[in-house]
Amino acid sequence: MNQNREIPYKIYLEESEMPKQWYNVRADMKNKPAPLLNPATHEPMTAEELSVVFCEDLVKQELDNDNAYIDIPQEILDFYKMYRPSPLVRAYCLEKQLDTPAKIYYKFEGNNTSGSHKLNSAIAQAYYAKKQGLKGVTTETGAGQWGTALSMACAYLGLDCKVYMVKCSYEQKPFRREVMRTYGAAVTPSPSDTTEIGRKILAEHPGTTGSLGCAISEAVEVATHTQGYRYVLGSVLNQVLLHQSIIGLETKTALDKYGIVPDIIIGCAGGGSNLGGLISPFMGEKLRGEKDYRFIAVEPASCPSFTRGKFAYDFCDTGMVTPLQKMYTLGSGFIPSANHAGGLRYHGMSSILSQLYHDGMMEAVSVEQTSVFAAAEQFARVEGILPAPESSHAIRVAIDEALKCKETGEEKTIVFGLTGTGYFDMVAYEKYNNGEMMDYIPTDKELEAGFAGIPRFEGNEF
Amino acid sequence: MNQNREIPYKIYLEESEMPKQWYNVRADMKNKPAPLLNPATHEPMTAEELSVVFCEDLVKQELDNDNAYIDIPQEILDFYKMYRPSPLVRAYCLEKQLDTPAKIYYKFEGNNTSGSHKLNSAIAQAYYAKKQGLKGVTTETGAGQWGTALSMACAYLGLDCKVYMVKCSYEQKPFRREVMRTYGAAVTPSPSDTTEIGRKILAEHPGTTGSLGCAISEAVEVATHTQGYRYVLGSVLNQVLLHQSIIGLETKTALDKYGIVPDIIIGCAGGGSNLGGLISPFMGEKLRGEKDYRFIAVEPASCPSFTRGKFAYDFCDTGMVTPLQKMYTLGSGFIPSANHAGGLRYHGMSSILSQLYHDGMMEAVSVEQTSVFAAAEQFARVEGILPAPESSHAIRVAIDEALKCKETGEEKTIVFGLTGTGYFDMVAYEKYNNGEMMDYIPTDKELEAGFAGIPRFEGNEF
Repeated sequence: MNQNREIPYKIYLEESEMPKQWYNVRADMKNKPAPLLNPATHEPMTAEELSVVFCEDLVKQELDNDNAYIDIPQEILDFYKMYRPSPLVRAYCLEKQLDTPAKIYYKFEGNNTSGSHKLNSAIAQAYYAKKQGLKGVTTETGAGQWGTALSMACAYLGLDCKVYMVKCSYEQKPFRREVMRTYGAAVTPSPSDTTEIGRKILAEHPGTTGSLGCAISEAVEVATHTQGYRYVLGSVLNQVLLHQSIIGLETKTALDKYGIVPDIIIGCAGGGSNLGGLISPFMGEKLRGEKDYRFIAVEPASCPSFTRGKFAYDFCDTGMVTPLQKMYTLGSGFIPSANHAGGLRYHGMSSILSQLYHDGMMEAVSVEQTSVFAAAEQFARVEGILPAPESSHAIRVAIDEALKCKETGEEKTIVFGLTGTGYFDMVAYEKYNNGEMMDYIPTDKELEAGFAGIPRFEGNEF
Repeated sequence: MNQNREIPYKIYLEESEMPKQWYNVRADMKNKPAPLLNPATHEPMTAEELSVVFCEDLVKQELDNDNAYIDIPQEILDFYKMYRPSPLVRAYCLEKQLDTPAKIYYKFEGNNTSGSHKLNSAIAQAYYAKKQGLKGVTTETGAGQWGTALSMACAYLGLDCKVYMVKCSYEQKPFRREVMRTYGAAVTPSPSDTTEIGRKILAEHPGTTGSLGCAISEAVEVATHTQGYRYVLGSVLNQVLLHQSIIGLETKTALDKYGIVPDIIIGCAGGGSNLGGLISPFMGEKLRGEKDYRFIAVEPASCPSFTRGKFAYDFCDTGMVTPLQKMYTLGSGFIPSANHAGGLRYHGMSSILSQLYHDGMMEAVSVEQTSVFAAAEQFARVEGILPAPESSHAIRVAIDEALKCKETGEEKTIVFGLTGTGYFDMVAYEKYNNGEMMDYIPTDKELEAGFAGIPRFEGNEF
């Protein structure tokens, strides 16, 4: 331990060391992510078309494949200062318990009331909506982290916030709902009778408990049918990865300060916002041929977009109202097994990360949820942080890699993203504590049913 | 705002600047807090008598009125580094919203999984238990913050942890319970049939939902009847204030770094652990005549120990099994109205703080809970942290003092303790959000009933 003594448990940057620009990894990608397509014409979506749904500045960011650095507006920097820089933590206690020569670091994004990294993009998207003179924004939320983050950002800026929350979550997670209400958001269980598509779904499937795809469809409908509103999204999109690059930039600055060079960088992957944000600046170095790193995306075995999905154009929502995006997908109708507790349940994946994975720039593994919760509990007990189930996917693989180092004797440096805390996930922890949690891996036949929903057209072979 | 620009939003100390000693304010008190009395003999409790209940080193700390500084063992310092130093935050956004010339700072203790400052003493108490070679510790918990903190500390040290949780909390706060179980604690709803006193209470009051006083009695019984166990307590005791001085010491170091001198220091007061810890080093300066500060204890109007209690010897628990402590008390049988949601429901108060208050060294005010939740919501929306109801008592008075400065034009510097987060208090927030929260101020007659339970003997006139 002596040789490490100089490195503190937590590396905090000074406010003056915080990044002033986001990094756009697309600028360094030779193979750019494929453009969004209009589902009717299969032509690339224009800025004009996208502006019906998204704020103008965000459309520019969405379509910008060229500028490597984009200034963070002062107002967003000021908001970031309320909860950032986030600490880069040396997991001394976990290393000791594992008895590994590996050095483990994690970038902890849970020290804010949204409980996750989602706030980094929420404030950016709310800021641009405000700047455009809009009255409010709409969105969907599943577990509620994104909805909470957006509510916080909107409360800060005095912007109206309408959240469509998947009905089963709305009922099972009343506390998340109340946090959003405390921040002044209007939270509606989805499907609802407030939208055409909601009424249609309710008529066709009375008693349905909703899905993320359905909530997206409702939020988009309200945004496009209400004067002064736009739709915002917490993951998947290029703009979101851009905002989340703050995670990776801070991580890199903190590591550089102490001369630490990571060998492996690990992140959980649902829509890709955390993983993309964390690895961006490191991936930039790899793309430019300056350095090499192993990047590992970790996904649930029950929703294995990267490891078992198809690289194809697909809808971003179940209602098929969004543009088509080229990505690793399980089909927009795919819904993970009901016993899946650990988040990361989106059928698709960021198109940036999909392209990078397709090009062999990163790896992906899938893990089963009981092993994820075992890692979560082990981590909580020695590192003192109760992790979100999502984040715990990354913990699982970080521990696995550290144990491999123990076998080989290699002193690898492992960095992983600890995206958030699990305070609102105690129902899942209770299941695990009671030994009632099950694993589930979809069969090939089930996956085939999902793939059947991917639209087929010329240029979308898979 | 320009003149303040140099002061960052968050002041984090370096690891090397963290205090290495706790500060014992009793050393600087002319009027020492009165000793604990044996309830049978009314003689001061000896170290030997106390050692049946408490760990040896903690008994020494409990009785030490002389040593101003006590070394923090390295193992505890290492644990502190996992979640400390905690930030001292400049509430720029709140100041702006209030349009006040006052400068507001808060010491935020919520960035750890226990969600509060309680962990500072939990690790110390668990450490000394481990050092003594004990097998485990017992305690009670109400809302669950202390129980969670102790569970975390015990998990870290590999110590057994038995928590008696007030039955109504056990049932209403299943998530807190699950956090404790995730950290390996055995959590029993109190009253239970696992103790003699529990069985007695259940027989006399079938269907009772329990009280803190009853849970204390059960935890003490188990500790004193089980080989290798001792009882630990999260507040009130001198030893707890000693450990919590880390809050004030860090605050003072951070303020000194930037040349900031506070005018008013505010803390919420239940048993007094947070308030005592926060003000200790500043109170030391005042006691030594070096500086002057206003100290304000804030308590709920529904449980007004300081502002309406008696300064007398009383039992620390309802079961009347503990020693007698000289303190401001509402009587050990006093239970706040059932509609009281905001924590801080203990009938008594730290004897150190009681003595200081009695000597005119600090002020106390009581506030009603709807005004507390209004302050909580206001704070959450601009400062981005959802505060615990307990902490929000201090926010209420900090805002009130800042608004007075607005009237007078005074540029006072206000520091308050933000003890924790409200993630497990959403039932109370929901009540507030729905307009269903009521205020309650006990009548004089109700208080008289509580006072009637205070033991009367020579030397205990009140």
